[in-house]
Amino acid sequence: MSKLIWKGATLVAPVPPTLVSCGTVEKPNVLTVAWCGIVNSQPPKTYVSIRPERYSYDIIKNSKSFVINMVTTDMVRAVDFCGVRSGRDVDKFKHCKLTAIASQKVTAPTIKEATLSFECKVTDIIPMGSHDMFLADIVSVSVEDNLLSEDGKLHISRAKPIAYAHGSYYKLGAKLGGFGFSVKKKGTSKKR
Amino acid sequence: MSKLIWKGATLVAPVPPTLVSCGTVEKPNVLTVAWCGIVNSQPPKTYVSIRPERYSYDIIKNSKSFVINMVTTDMVRAVDFCGVRSGRDVDKFKHCKLTAIASQKVTAPTIKEATLSFECKVTDIIPMGSHDMFLADIVSVSVEDNLLSEDGKLHISRAKPIAYAHGSYYKLGAKLGGFGFSVKKKGTSKKR
Repeated sequence: MSKLIWKGATLVAPVPPTLVSCGTVEKPNVLTVAWCGIVNSQPPKTYVSIRPERYSYDIIKNSKSFVINMVTTDMVRAVDFCGVRSGRDVDKFKHCKLTAIASQKVTAPTIKEATLSFECKVTDIIPMGSHDMFLADIVSVSVEDNLLSEDGKLHISRAKPIAYAHGSYYKLGAKLGGFGFSVKKKGTSKKR
Repeated sequence: MSKLIWKGATLVAPVPPTLVSCGTVEKPNVLTVAWCGIVNSQPPKTYVSIRPERYSYDIIKNSKSFVINMVTTDMVRAVDFCGVRSGRDVDKFKHCKLTAIASQKVTAPTIKEATLSFECKVTDIIPMGSHDMFLADIVSVSVEDNLLSEDGKLHISRAKPIAYAHGSYYKLGAKLGGFGFSVKKKGTSKKR
């Protein structure tokens, strides 16, 4: 094996291809954003990077709110469609059979069919080049109750999250371990 | 099914748990960062969010350089260890049998055992609360040649990337489709 040297590229993977809803319950729009992640733990902060020419750009800029929605792998076709098509040309909620419902703390609607939705209030918009980065506080989370076991524990694998890597969508595979597993004393970890 | 409402939380998933190397070839350090992603396509820009109390924080702040390294699922134990332990207490390169090699364009070393490495020059540091966000240009990428097929095409699945979701590490699973698959005309897509 040897290393090839390439110029800079956006191949860091996997990233979350999320459905970002904006607008209002009455007039919702949605676009898919994979340039998304967590930037802070306390308080919980996230970002989405969006090209200014996207239809949703001005909607989010003006309303200062959006919702990051995670859907299951069964809905990967909708995730792809909402990344390719523009809300200027098609009602993506209608086309993808998505339902806009009221959020708790922001004007942007939540997608009813999502398993996990993160309501976000924009705090800063930073131009980066092709994209602008919207930094935001995650002010509320809605969770489908079927993701929880009877003891109230969240099982993210039940959400069947979609991963994005180098231009393709993937399922999550087998669990490899929990945070801190490498330093646990032998005999103290329980099978679960 | 019904929705539970929680306060803000950092559950967006999956995110990439990457080995971030810093310092120099002679005195390298490495920490694991899952608060990492792409923020811009042209020019390619990324970020890592790091707590100021981490040992690597000042090293990266002073040198203005770091390298994001992706390793295969076989190395998940090293990924976990480098997120839990501090370079103040242990030589993590030595402990995890990692090799620091010279990068092309930054002082921070590349991890030889990585399949994909992204050399990054810091452009901005933005305090967020618990973490500071280091925004950076991706100025060079090194790729293990065994990730490429004979026609020079990158197969990211050969990198066996590790995903992080809600406190656990996962393999990537089955491919669900390529970007744009939902709008391809029937009969035009080739099996591959």
